[in-house]
Amino acid sequence: MKNVLAINAGSSSLKFQLIQMPEEKVSAIGVIERIGLDNSIFKMEVNGNKEKSISDIPNHGVAVQLLLKALTDSGVIKSFQEIDAVGHRVVHGGEYFSDSVLITDEVIQTIENVSELAPLHNPANLTGIRAFQEILPDVPMVAVFDTAFHQSMPKSSYLYSLPKNYYTEYGIRKYGFHGTSHKFVSERAAELIGTPIEDLRLITCHIGNGASVTAVEGGKSIDTSMGFTPLAGVTMGTRSGDIDPALIPYIMDKTGKTADEVVHVLNKESGMLALSGFSSDLRDIEERAASDERAELALTVFAERIHQFIGSYAAKMSGVDAIIFTAGVGENSDVVREKILTGLEFMGVYWDPKLNNVRGKEQFINYPHSPVKVIVIPTNEEVMIARDTVRLS
Amino acid sequence: MKNVLAINAGSSSLKFQLIQMPEEKVSAIGVIERIGLDNSIFKMEVNGNKEKSISDIPNHGVAVQLLLKALTDSGVIKSFQEIDAVGHRVVHGGEYFSDSVLITDEVIQTIENVSELAPLHNPANLTGIRAFQEILPDVPMVAVFDTAFHQSMPKSSYLYSLPKNYYTEYGIRKYGFHGTSHKFVSERAAELIGTPIEDLRLITCHIGNGASVTAVEGGKSIDTSMGFTPLAGVTMGTRSGDIDPALIPYIMDKTGKTADEVVHVLNKESGMLALSGFSSDLRDIEERAASDERAELALTVFAERIHQFIGSYAAKMSGVDAIIFTAGVGENSDVVREKILTGLEFMGVYWDPKLNNVRGKEQFINYPHSPVKVIVIPTNEEVMIARDTVRLS
Repeated sequence: MKNVLAINAGSSSLKFQLIQMPEEKVSAIGVIERIGLDNSIFKMEVNGNKEKSISDIPNHGVAVQLLLKALTDSGVIKSFQEIDAVGHRVVHGGEYFSDSVLITDEVIQTIENVSELAPLHNPANLTGIRAFQEILPDVPMVAVFDTAFHQSMPKSSYLYSLPKNYYTEYGIRKYGFHGTSHKFVSERAAELIGTPIEDLRLITCHIGNGASVTAVEGGKSIDTSMGFTPLAGVTMGTRSGDIDPALIPYIMDKTGKTADEVVHVLNKESGMLALSGFSSDLRDIEERAASDERAELALTVFAERIHQFIGSYAAKMSGVDAIIFTAGVGENSDVVREKILTGLEFMGVYWDPKLNNVRGKEQFINYPHSPVKVIVIPTNEEVMIARDTVRLS
Repeated sequence: MKNVLAINAGSSSLKFQLIQMPEEKVSAIGVIERIGLDNSIFKMEVNGNKEKSISDIPNHGVAVQLLLKALTDSGVIKSFQEIDAVGHRVVHGGEYFSDSVLITDEVIQTIENVSELAPLHNPANLTGIRAFQEILPDVPMVAVFDTAFHQSMPKSSYLYSLPKNYYTEYGIRKYGFHGTSHKFVSERAAELIGTPIEDLRLITCHIGNGASVTAVEGGKSIDTSMGFTPLAGVTMGTRSGDIDPALIPYIMDKTGKTADEVVHVLNKESGMLALSGFSSDLRDIEERAASDERAELALTVFAERIHQFIGSYAAKMSGVDAIIFTAGVGENSDVVREKILTGLEFMGVYWDPKLNNVRGKEQFINYPHSPVKVIVIPTNEEVMIARDTVRLS
């Protein structure tokens, strides 16, 4: 038995789970927020007991010490020595990592080198890694990348139709994100269907506040809706998804904004928030859809873009064997799933409205006679991190 | 019988066809190039006789006089009075025109008002209209818009997921282009299939140097791949099609270009030209594809994006009854059609490689047992202009 810490470090936060492997049992889960600010918040849950404390946590190093002390104090581990490995979520691995990797000095250097591609995330992830290395210098650590699963895309999917040096000199290509989640649900789907993943064509819909759709053929990502950044693809909570790129200079001209400011609007003030006019949260929008025309429209656009990506990726794989829904909205909203699935009979998708009435649990929602399976699978990126950490440490 | 002139005026060119209606017989066809430059070129073909002359044509007014003189000189008409109506292609009708329209002072003012949306085209189209009005003041003229056919799109298709005032104040929405062509081949497809267009779901692929795919439900465009401008959608000769909008500031930063300059690259130096590295012309690329890896990749990307749009629009209409290929590449390249059609059996597309071996003529290329029809239909925007001109004048 091994104790693995799965870590997701942000610039002022640290999410953690202590997971017993290979049982995949979560012994502790929590988050530290407002690191480096006043009144930092520490929250942890162990065996159903929740604790919360407020103190000033000046940096990630102190946060890690506090976390380890809390774990030992709570009794889930007796000492630091019982932590066998630490897995770190890292957003961007560029073209360097097509799998998770044991962290070495060279790996850290490479993660730093691709920080330009994820300037908000990679540096924060590295801060987390370094804080743990300082305090647990002898514990193996593994980096698990959001982009790695999509490195299997063929050139025809990842290359934009842009001048060649944009790719060779500037690294401009489709990278894709949510890879850990798309991989997790793909593998789980193959288990549930009882067919080797090598023989399956899957479309995985990770639909949360961010959303992406991936075509998974033979267990490999062959295309995904997000692009160079997570802005591309479908309409999301606050992100526009794909728009005519010629709009950027037009919007700059009309509003006096810089290109960066326009892209900020596309990332933070667009999507469902802009369409509905009141919220980026699908639950709010669903609630008002019956009485509010703009909420209804937002819901339609949101579902329709995903519906169309399913058609697009089915065409790309010459058909599909199963469609998978995961993440906050995908797991919980029967309304959105219904809108996405309606009208796909022509490609063999026969779904059962009764079975679709499910929230947050694994369930086939297709009729038994449906050639294409439809499955709700709660995602678990932390377990995926723990699995890779055990495999590589 | 009526003689209708179908006119497509560019900033330094004037394309024309004299069409006998209702027979739809072309009595003269030609083009005047380099208007306003030295050594302007006048080309015309009448009954198989080609003529060409070079002279200085200072403006569109002189060009129109020259054209009318050539028509009478050649004997196809005896005098100006035999021209019953003139139809003008106009690129952008904004949200004001969902059909062709008889040109009045108010119509001209409106075309001028939407010129901001098509700054290269609408002013040139207006120059053509004004030149004809001056010389043929009593002849009815009709404007036929590239955007009009797509005005039937529902809000969920034409609205971007952007702040509301971008639409209400700045007119930012999907307009779509090639409307005259998509409409022409849709109507023709319904005739060929022998089913009222109201009962058909069509996907029309206008594939030339510019390319767009349209979902036509019940005779109405309900979605199209081009957007606010013709840059959006699939990979084209020199246009990138859709890319992650966040790339624009990134490219600006890397290359030192302005946003306008980057969009210029996306319009003029991208697409097949960038992918192949040597040509935007599909014929060149096809020729080298067997021996040149980049040409092969360009061909794959080009076909695959259209293939995926077909899946996307089939999903949008809950299925499709016929797929139509038109324009330069769509009518003539069996190679591209094969690549686009391969792997669509899951949605009922069974095409016959033997029948696909056709160039530039109307032909069903599906097997008789195919639930989805596939038809090659040469487009004819000039005839469409002439039809609308007769209908409205």
